[in-house]
Amino acid sequence: MASLSERTPEIRRDRVFNRHVILSPARARRPSDFKSKSPANPTPPSSTTQCPFCIGREHECAPEILRFPPNTPNWKIRVIENLYPALRRDQEHNFFTNPNPNLRLSSVGFGFHDVVIETPIHSLHLPDLSPIGVADVLLAYKTRIDQLRLHQSIKYIQVFKNHGATAGASMTHSHSQMIALPIVPPSVSSRLESMKAWFNETRKCGLCDIGSDEVSIDKSAHFVSVVPYAASFPFEIWIVPKAHCCHFHELDNEMAVDLGGLLKLMLLKLSKQLNDPPYNFMIHTSPLDIATSDLQFSHWFLQIVPQLTGIGGFEMGSGCYINPIFSEDATKVLREFVVG
Amino acid sequence: MASLSERTPEIRRDRVFNRHVILSPARARRPSDFKSKSPANPTPPSSTTQCPFCIGREHECAPEILRFPPNTPNWKIRVIENLYPALRRDQEHNFFTNPNPNLRLSSVGFGFHDVVIETPIHSLHLPDLSPIGVADVLLAYKTRIDQLRLHQSIKYIQVFKNHGATAGASMTHSHSQMIALPIVPPSVSSRLESMKAWFNETRKCGLCDIGSDEVSIDKSAHFVSVVPYAASFPFEIWIVPKAHCCHFHELDNEMAVDLGGLLKLMLLKLSKQLNDPPYNFMIHTSPLDIATSDLQFSHWFLQIVPQLTGIGGFEMGSGCYINPIFSEDATKVLREFVVG
Ligand SMILES: Nc1ncnc2c1ncn2[C@@H]1O[C@H](COP(=O)(O)OP(=O)(O)O[C@H]2O[C@H](CO)[C@@H](O)[C@H](O)[C@H]2O)[C@@H](O)[C@H]1O
Ligand SMILES: Nc1ncnc2c1ncn2[C@@H]1O[C@H](COP(=O)(O)OP(=O)(O)O[C@H]2O[C@H](CO)[C@@H](O)[C@H](O)[C@H]2O)[C@@H](O)[C@H]1O
Repeated sequence: MASLSERTPEIRRDRVFNRHVILSPARARRPSDFKSKSPANPTPPSSTTQCPFCIGREHECAPEILRFPPNTPNWKIRVIENLYPALRRDQEHNFFTNPNPNLRLSSVGFGFHDVVIETPIHSLHLPDLSPIGVADVLLAYKTRIDQLRLHQSIKYIQVFKNHGATAGASMTHSHSQMIALPIVPPSVSSRLESMKAWFNETRKCGLCDIGSDEVSIDKSAHFVSVVPYAASFPFEIWIVPKAHCCHFHELDNEMAVDLGGLLKLMLLKLSKQLNDPPYNFMIHTSPLDIATSDLQFSHWFLQIVPQLTGIGGFEMGSGCYINPIFSEDATKVLREFVVG
Repeated sequence: MASLSERTPEIRRDRVFNRHVILSPARARRPSDFKSKSPANPTPPSSTTQCPFCIGREHECAPEILRFPPNTPNWKIRVIENLYPALRRDQEHNFFTNPNPNLRLSSVGFGFHDVVIETPIHSLHLPDLSPIGVADVLLAYKTRIDQLRLHQSIKYIQVFKNHGATAGASMTHSHSQMIALPIVPPSVSSRLESMKAWFNETRKCGLCDIGSDEVSIDKSAHFVSVVPYAASFPFEIWIVPKAHCCHFHELDNEMAVDLGGLLKLMLLKLSKQLNDPPYNFMIHTSPLDIATSDLQFSHWFLQIVPQLTGIGGFEMGSGCYINPIFSEDATKVLREFVVG
């Protein structure tokens, strides 16, 4: 790999997040005198008698919101309230402390924080499910979003998954989470601003042509998966709908199965190629209320970030990232890897 | 702590970074079935014969840029080139690939990446130095910045420190780093935008009155230390100059000794109170070229972030943070703790 390491570093700007990354293969060679980092995924408890997310232990969980299939003890997926929620669903009133939004520095912590249990069985992980099984998880997100967006006060819904301790997970049983917020996070607004600037310059949505500009890892009928040109993290993957579409919750059943298959494939590739790394995935969608004029440059996608390197003070301070793997090289590895 | 945990969560917006945090004590009670996280700071190698940053091993390092005191083998501080630099100092030419800045997605990785060795002795950490010793480290940053800013192509300089493996450090010997960038990172521009919006609304710099609005942890002649009102991380600390000032490198010798004492005190409090946690600190300064009209709301400060909890997909996706410790409670703990 000596030749790769000598490649001149490059600064790239991501046109979606307006974030810079320094692609710098030389960084991969630096030594460390810290003994060993902990294994990314310590063995989960062999006995599942302690896990409240397992089938048969529903009484140890916070209240259920929905299950699939409905009305059966043999559920495949459950959406439940988070027992230790970041936000409280019982505070929907008068939550602004200052009438001037520019001076508004505090509000009551109203919102919804749900857990999606992806399987009744402790030993299974999301990519172990069939494409239809993964699709059902995606459709559970959609169903729950369709309930949440009826609340006038909810402005943005963040769907995310933490897998492995280094990715922040506290529970080993396969699950994801949804947080419905009474605000549009500034970083979501600035993502849309960035997409708008790109659109104004090129008259094209920055995500519509992603599979043509960048070499794709894989494609399905409705989706394309790529390592983005300015990936902030090694082996970061985006799965982008080919057709322009601003909200994840517009997903229909056919697209869900299609996406389920591609998501499963990407997670399997990461797991097999990189030794089951911890990872996060995030669905980047649009605010629930979006101006008609903003529709043309708003395009949802799913971002998968394996946690391979960690970050430091440079990233926290400057918001720029250092990635030792050029996107093209990561694409090549993931593209050529055939899941057996 | 039951009463604390029942406190209603609150959403706060930071007026400097325009970032939201959910303060949610209930989150501190959630269980984890991952066995043990690795100790934050595995014991550093007992023998220092392997450490290139130790005195006497200068030949194992990349070239030296400056040392203090100069021209003596008994140095106290060395600024050296990073042997595995993210950016290359020999590429200062023609680094833009597109004349239109809005379409500019790539440039050659030009810039400077230096390491500041804070002490010749392997077993000492920054807060073990005297206030004057810490001041000398701060003045080494300043001296190096004064060299770097002579380069027309350098637009922003990020000074940062990683302490402990979980904070990203690969070397145990006490050190910090400086990266000089040919761009102003978008997150720096948006920090200034946010300070500007606050200024336009209030006619006050958002950092000038921080010690009066927020209860301070400690004060020195020229600086005040606080847990910011909307702290993103538990026990996050900001050290802010009392007098309005936009660039860190305006620091003079007297202020450096004053800041050295306060920084030492804050690091000792964190270390003693929270069992030597890994931490990062970042100096948030202004771009090197700053418009005269922007001077009135640009105010540099130093941010210290102990790494106690980690983040997950919610933070990566939404840019909002969840902090289980209310800023007032963290302030109280740090304020009342007397370093013996
Ligand atoms: N019996 C029960 N019934 C219902 N819910 C239960 C439960 N027992 C536990 N839970 C909830 O299950 C969730 C499991 O979530 P994860 O493992 O994905 O990460 P967690 O939210 O803990 O924190 C990670 O993700 C968040 C958000 O990104 C980060 O703030 C944090 O730092 C990171 O560690 C927890 O939120 C917990 O409160
Ligand atoms: N003999 C020698 N001479 C000169 N320099 C030498 C050297 N041996 C090692 N170095 C350099 O010393 C530096 C030590 O830095 P740190 O321990 O603070 O973290 P590091 O930069 O490795 O990465 C952390 O910080 C960066 C920036 O925040 C993150 O990108 C990353 O993920 C995180 O782990 C390294 O950058 C290394 O290249």
